[in-house]
Amino acid sequence: MKAPTRNWAAEVRAGDVRALSRALTAVENGEAEAQSLLRELFPFTGRAWRIGITGAAGTGKSTLVSCLAAHYRAQKKSLGVIAIDPSSPFTGGAILGDRIRMNTHATDDGVFIRSMASRGAWGGLSQAAADAALVLDAAGRDVIIVETVGVGQDEIEIVRVADCTLVVVTPGSGDEVQSLKAGLMEIADIFVLNKADNPETDRFEQQLLSALQLAPPREGWNPKAVRTVATEDRGVVELISEIDAFRQSYAGSKQRQERQVAYWKSWLLRSLQHHVTEQALQNGRTLDELAAGVAARHKEPHKAAEELMSALGFGWKQSS
Amino acid sequence: MKAPTRNWAAEVRAGDVRALSRALTAVENGEAEAQSLLRELFPFTGRAWRIGITGAAGTGKSTLVSCLAAHYRAQKKSLGVIAIDPSSPFTGGAILGDRIRMNTHATDDGVFIRSMASRGAWGGLSQAAADAALVLDAAGRDVIIVETVGVGQDEIEIVRVADCTLVVVTPGSGDEVQSLKAGLMEIADIFVLNKADNPETDRFEQQLLSALQLAPPREGWNPKAVRTVATEDRGVVELISEIDAFRQSYAGSKQRQERQVAYWKSWLLRSLQHHVTEQALQNGRTLDELAAGVAARHKEPHKAAEELMSALGFGWKQSS
Repeated sequence: MKAPTRNWAAEVRAGDVRALSRALTAVENGEAEAQSLLRELFPFTGRAWRIGITGAAGTGKSTLVSCLAAHYRAQKKSLGVIAIDPSSPFTGGAILGDRIRMNTHATDDGVFIRSMASRGAWGGLSQAAADAALVLDAAGRDVIIVETVGVGQDEIEIVRVADCTLVVVTPGSGDEVQSLKAGLMEIADIFVLNKADNPETDRFEQQLLSALQLAPPREGWNPKAVRTVATEDRGVVELISEIDAFRQSYAGSKQRQERQVAYWKSWLLRSLQHHVTEQALQNGRTLDELAAGVAARHKEPHKAAEELMSALGFGWKQSS
Repeated sequence: MKAPTRNWAAEVRAGDVRALSRALTAVENGEAEAQSLLRELFPFTGRAWRIGITGAAGTGKSTLVSCLAAHYRAQKKSLGVIAIDPSSPFTGGAILGDRIRMNTHATDDGVFIRSMASRGAWGGLSQAAADAALVLDAAGRDVIIVETVGVGQDEIEIVRVADCTLVVVTPGSGDEVQSLKAGLMEIADIFVLNKADNPETDRFEQQLLSALQLAPPREGWNPKAVRTVATEDRGVVELISEIDAFRQSYAGSKQRQERQVAYWKSWLLRSLQHHVTEQALQNGRTLDELAAGVAARHKEPHKAAEELMSALGFGWKQSS
């Protein structure tokens, strides 16, 4: 890739789509230039409204994102969409299909869409997604949507960058409220009951509301449920009103401040983990030899971990 | 907890159930004594046959584990079961129910069951589960079953400790083969199609087999599918035969060696991450201040990460 111009940050801030696109690629690939760019852009962030969307595969998240984008465009708002795709050869088809649906917006510069693939098992993706959100924020996008397939801890980390988190569920598809992945109940500001034309929706919503009543009360806002049928664009106006209501409640609140500090704390820890892992992988031979020693039962695993820390020049404090 | 006796390791190796129970508690809580115990026990591990079981909530994993345990007991084999429970107040009920079903074995010393709860978002659980498996192995358990709810990266890490991995799916419950979480296709040695009395099973199995044919061929063993109805103990004998067939193919194979080295490599990296995170959390004030600085947009996040590394005495190598 061509070396960035001296005006890269200025071009991004001016909303230049090519500069923006190049910046997101640099961020996604962890290029060295991305870091200096982010430093220049960072003071100009914090203006965008960030919506996180997560939920299991097949709940219709992408269709919902497409609907939300259309409604925000009708309000003359510019959008940035970051779609996180887990990388598996087996799900490639489904994801391609999702992305094709988003093509409604392909010719509209007001909707900038970027798919990011998983960067391996060692994290880094929530970092890259957070950086991408910062870039879009500095580029003046009014609304940033971060969408991620799946409901593991990694996905939860990714959407935590958002101001408002939507958890998409589909009543009657085998999802029981009881089986909602640990962590999802805690992060949702709004539950979107999508495909709500399913007759199971009433029962599901009742169960969900009961479960929410058992949760510790939150300050200022308690999670809501909104019904949609995204394929028919039904319920999306109501969803946007609920997002606006949350935004009213959230703006300037103590909760917002706390959530942001908690998010960056978590981001810093992930960054630390990512960094030491990179260093260990750069010392590949040491790592391989230690792993082989443990596999052959010559070396006890915790002893091997200590040796790895020492080899990397990190102190090892006994946890006693 | 009472200080361990000098003969703790010897008692564990002799199969003493109280010593074993105490050892697992020490491991789960990350107690300092656990590490020296593990060092003593480690040379006596590597004998047990370890089965990992994962799959989404509601697929019937616990019932299946109970059936497998009964069949292995009939073969006079001793068992250790490690059940990983994600900690959420909302799923507590379901898990309790699962555990109650396991009570069939509650009065049988030949089946040692331990539930472990999540140790927060910062990992450590796959470490604890691996340590628990080592303890049970040294205690002479013939078969060790590690069962984990859910299908995120953390759960996949947990079951990778096993020699043989079962992925449980329920055809026709909204699970589509296409939507199988990235990573699951790759780790499964055997797919268990549970609740196989569902008429969708044929179609599901066909889709699964097609998907498997698209996967890169593995050396020595290609993943199989076995149908069960665990609630009626149907298909469990066939499942055990398939596990035995895998074991035949796996024993002494190059694949086993490679898988073990890869597992311990991954374990070492997780251990490293866990350790630096613990150190950062012990320096809580530094972490809080840096996070607050970023949240207030006074400090760029990557700069804050560098400062955190320095504060912890770790070198920071620019990735350029």
